[in-house]
Formats: sequence, C-alpha cells, structure tokens
Amino acid sequence: MKNNSFYAIKFEQDSLSFIDQTKLPFEENYIKTDSFEIIADAIEKLKIRGAPLIGIAAAYAVALAFKGNLKKSDEYFQQVIERLQSTRPTAVNLFHTLNIMRDKFNSLSEDDDVYKELLNKAIEIEKAEIFYSEKIAKLGLNIFQKKSNVLTHCNTGSLAAADYGTALGIIKKAFEHNLINIVYVDETRPLFQGLRLTAFELEKYQIPFEVLTDSMASSLISHNKVDLVIVGADRIALNGDTANKIGTLSLAIICSYFNIPFYVAAPSSTIDKNIISGSEIIIEHRGAKEIYSFQDKLIGKESWNYYNPAFDVTPSHLITGIITEKNIYRFPYNFINE
Amino acid sequence: MKNNSFYAIKFEQDSLSFIDQTKLPFEENYIKTDSFEIIADAIEKLKIRGAPLIGIAAAYAVALAFKGNLKKSDEYFQQVIERLQSTRPTAVNLFHTLNIMRDKFNSLSEDDDVYKELLNKAIEIEKAEIFYSEKIAKLGLNIFQKKSNVLTHCNTGSLAAADYGTALGIIKKAFEHNLINIVYVDETRPLFQGLRLTAFELEKYQIPFEVLTDSMASSLISHNKVDLVIVGADRIALNGDTANKIGTLSLAIICSYFNIPFYVAAPSSTIDKNIISGSEIIIEHRGAKEIYSFQDKLIGKESWNYYNPAFDVTPSHLITGIITEKNIYRFPYNFINE
Repeated sequence: MKNNSFYAIKFEQDSLSFIDQTKLPFEENYIKTDSFEIIADAIEKLKIRGAPLIGIAAAYAVALAFKGNLKKSDEYFQQVIERLQSTRPTAVNLFHTLNIMRDKFNSLSEDDDVYKELLNKAIEIEKAEIFYSEKIAKLGLNIFQKKSNVLTHCNTGSLAAADYGTALGIIKKAFEHNLINIVYVDETRPLFQGLRLTAFELEKYQIPFEVLTDSMASSLISHNKVDLVIVGADRIALNGDTANKIGTLSLAIICSYFNIPFYVAAPSSTIDKNIISGSEIIIEHRGAKEIYSFQDKLIGKESWNYYNPAFDVTPSHLITGIITEKNIYRFPYNFINE
Repeated sequence: MKNNSFYAIKFEQDSLSFIDQTKLPFEENYIKTDSFEIIADAIEKLKIRGAPLIGIAAAYAVALAFKGNLKKSDEYFQQVIERLQSTRPTAVNLFHTLNIMRDKFNSLSEDDDVYKELLNKAIEIEKAEIFYSEKIAKLGLNIFQKKSNVLTHCNTGSLAAADYGTALGIIKKAFEHNLINIVYVDETRPLFQGLRLTAFELEKYQIPFEVLTDSMASSLISHNKVDLVIVGADRIALNGDTANKIGTLSLAIICSYFNIPFYVAAPSSTIDKNIISGSEIIIEHRGAKEIYSFQDKLIGKESWNYYNPAFDVTPSHLITGIITEKNIYRFPYNFINE
C-alpha cells in the first residue's frame, strides 16, 4: 500500500525489531532485541500491542529464548511460556500461539536444533497471519453497500496485526476500492490508541480521517455521519460474544439504537473454543495511572479511586456480523464447528 | 455541608472572586476582579463554567461594567451584553440572565445609580439560584428507592451552579440522607470536568467515589454496579429534549438499553421556551486543541482533523425524569405552561 513506511515488528538477523508504540505518533523508535524477556516486557507495557500482533511477537519470543544452541529443557520452556502468558490475560491469540509453540516443542527430540525448529514455526505463524489479514480484508469488502463513512475504535491496523490488520485492514482495502469517504477514529481512552496509532496509520496511507473522543460517537451517528462501524476483537466466545477494547460495548449499543451496522473483524484464532459465552471471559484490569495522568502530567489525584478495565464484552445480538479469514458470520453465532 | 472549603464565585467588596477551574484539582487559585471583560474571558476559557454559574457570573459582570458611577448608556450596555453573549452559545441560562438584566436596565431612569440597581438585580438572581438548587436537591431525594450507586457525567456541583449544584446537588443531599453508597464519575473528555472537578468536590464533601473514562460506563452498568444516572442540562426544549455535555446522549442510550433510570436536573431557567425540540438547539463546537493536547503535551498531531462538539442532544423519550426547582416531570414532557 501507499506510504507504508513503517512496520510494527520484523524478524531479521536472528532478532526481533519492533516499533515502540507508546512513543507514537511523534517518535518512530525501533527496538531490536534477541531477548525474550525484553519482548515480554514490551507486550506488558503495550510497546507491542493488538491481539494478533501479540501472538506473533510471542511466537518469536519463544524461539529467541532458545537462541545460542540451547538444548531442549522442559522446565526452561515452561518458564518462558509462563512469563509470556502473564503479560496480557485477555487476548486469546497469545494463548493460542503459545499452545502451537508448545506442541512444536513437545514434538522435538533431544538432537533437534530447538531454536531453528521453533523459529520456523514462528515464521509459519506470521505468514499464516499475513494470509488471514489479506483474506479478512477481501471478505470485508462485502459489507460495503456504497462509498461509506466508517467509524472505528482503538487500533486494529498494521500496528495491531500482521500486514493490513483486521478491522482497519478492511478499511484500507475498502479505500483502495474507492469505498471510503472518511474514517472517524475514536480516540480510545485511556491510552489513546485511536488518536495516537490509528490516526498515525491513516495518515501514512493517506486515507481521510477525523478524530473524536469516545463520548462523541453517538453525537456523530445521531447526525447521520456514520454508515457503519468496524472494530477488532481480543476474544470471541462460541456464541459470538466479543471482548474488545473498552468502549466497544457502548459503540455497539449506540449502533443498535440508531440502526447502524456494527461489525467485528478478527482472525479465527480469536475465537476461544473453550468458552461458550462472554460471561466466562476474564477481563484485564490495568493500573489507575493510565487514567489520572498523561505522560508526566497529572490530570486527577493519585489518591483517588479509579475503574480501569482494559476490555468490555459485547453481547453477540448487538453484532451485525463477525468477519474472519473464513467467512462473514451473522447472528445467531455458533462457532463450535468452525 | 462538611468540608465545603471552597467556592466557585463570591461577590464582595464590589468585586467578583472566582476560582480558576482550569487549574483544579491541583491549584485552588482565586481571581478577584471588577472587570466585566475579565469575567467574559473567564467564561469563554472555562475558568468559570456550568450553565447556572455562567448565568450568575454574567449578571455580576453586567453590573460591574457600570461600576464607578457610569451613566446609563444604551450603546455601552449593548456592547457589554453582546460581549457576554458571545462567550458560550449553548447554555441558555446565560441568555436568560442577560434578558433579566436588560429588562432591569431598560426600567432605569437617567438619575438612577445604574451600578447599584444592576448589582441588586444580580444579587437577587444569585439568591434565587441558591434557592432553586436547594429545592432541586430536596425534590431529587424522591428518585431514590434505596441506598444507591449513582453515576454522573461532567460537573454539576458547586463549581457549576449556585450552592449545592444541580445533579451533583441531589447527590450531595442524598448522601446527607444516607442514600448514597458510591458515586461513579465519568472523566468527561475532552476537558475532564468529571475527573478534575466532580472528583475534587466529592473529596471535599467526603463522599465515596470512583472515576472512570466515559467509555467505561457501559461496562460498569453491565456489571450491575449502577442504580441510577443523574446529569445536568445546558438547554432543555419544550418537549424535554436536552442539550448537555458531550457524552450525555451515549449515557442515556446505554441506560435505556440496560433499563437504568436516567435523570436530568436543572433550574427551570434552563428550559428554552423558544424552542419546541432539540433539533433547534445550536451546539457549540470548540477548538481541536482540547482533544489533541493536555496542558503542554501533545497526544495527537495538530495537523489532523478533529470533531469537537461541546454538547449533544438527548431525545426526551430516553429521559426518565427532569427535576427542576418546581417539580419532577416525566415523559412525555410539555413545558409550555410551566
């Protein structure tokens, strides 16, 4: 695509390079490392974020933990996995990917080159995710009835997933097909992933956009400025209930009230086949500092109490369609046989 | 009330003192002035804010414009009124108050002490507003079925209105009557009036509270943590459609979805008898800088496009009740004979 002069992660020369997303949009700093601990820390601190991207980065981290001819050690492998699992509890892609890496590890013999084998698996995972992103973007074109005004929440582009991204991947592809007038971007409090990251990507791709606070979406929609909403997902239950960035539930309710289509886009690895409904999804609660301060400036007092869930769960009946690399699904959802 | 160790405005020694609300909660700076232009500027820059409070401050500003034995001059009076009208277009209380001051001015003769007469009218307006706040707070007790968890948006307390305030005035009164477990406070982007001002007031009054981003209200409500929502109003149409701080419409829609009572509290001067429905309300759009920066820190780029309406309009069918100093009204609203 045009002006895609950045990348979220890149594996080369036996190291992972990643852009520090906490410094965007003003500083494009890349960090190069072969330390799985630095990658785990980067995921925890949201330098690397976005459910699919976390999965890919974690796969490379598992491989890099065995760089330098380390032998197969179940105990050490378990430590690495547990450290990575502890970074972000809600994104299912992370656990899905770590399970794939575990299966690979368990299949290895004492004589195998553990690093090389795990690295090949990580590369395979990334390639699959790139393929899925492209499929999601192409399938997503079908939700457009006309050249549209689209609203999105958080960041679901190249900074959140492989290649194009998921929800933002559809938007980019639709723009290439002349199906986008403008993209409205929720700033996405508390960490401003919309204002900082999605706007950054849209500028790079030269797609027209306007940023609003999360509380302004209903005003915009009430003035008939939005044709459809597309968001990503961090975990999808078998019945279609979807955990995504905090603020998604509000948007879905508002869309239902105004009768605006509300779509979720995610690779099928986001579907957690172990849970039947959204009530089983564990929601990560993060530190109060994300709300009461910005950089080194205090907005409210540290001593006050804050509520800071990173995600909310949208009931499936509010979701017009769920777009994976396989299909566009409609309510009622049943992913048991997918 | 307990610990009410601050005030929003106070008229004494022929000057208006006001707390600079843009510096709260960290600095409690009072500015003392007898310049109507400084008061107009303070309203424009949100140092003085809140629909009822703007009305009171503007009344004192009109009087102060004639301090120093100035004679009755229609032309000068008109200039003063126009400057004050230009500060905030949406809050109807401002226009309502300026009309009262105009009637008073027009009733004066050449020999009257213009300053003294206008000042007495301003004092009368403030006293009436204090009386209305007390009445609203007392009437508001009737909406509580039990000791409750209440959520509110923006700031509607002593920093927004006379004495107790409007929506927050009801909450304070309910707390005195042991009807409040906890107050949930929407931070209220972009200017954080909830996080900065409402939290500041609740701390002063020792009322338990927790702050959340605007996007988190639906998550909180979905977990049955909220019994009712009370907000203020900047302008109410004859049919009950209500303009209030941006984010109110989202909250009302979410309350309707979850079947939670959603109340509006405001003095009856907030009802604009010139407009039939909310579609006639002019919404103030403010500068993009409020969204893309905090203090001197940039969040997003100045060159990007932003949508920044200061208010939205909630259709009356989403409002469980409107509480003024006169009554608690229920849908369908008709304020024509009130």
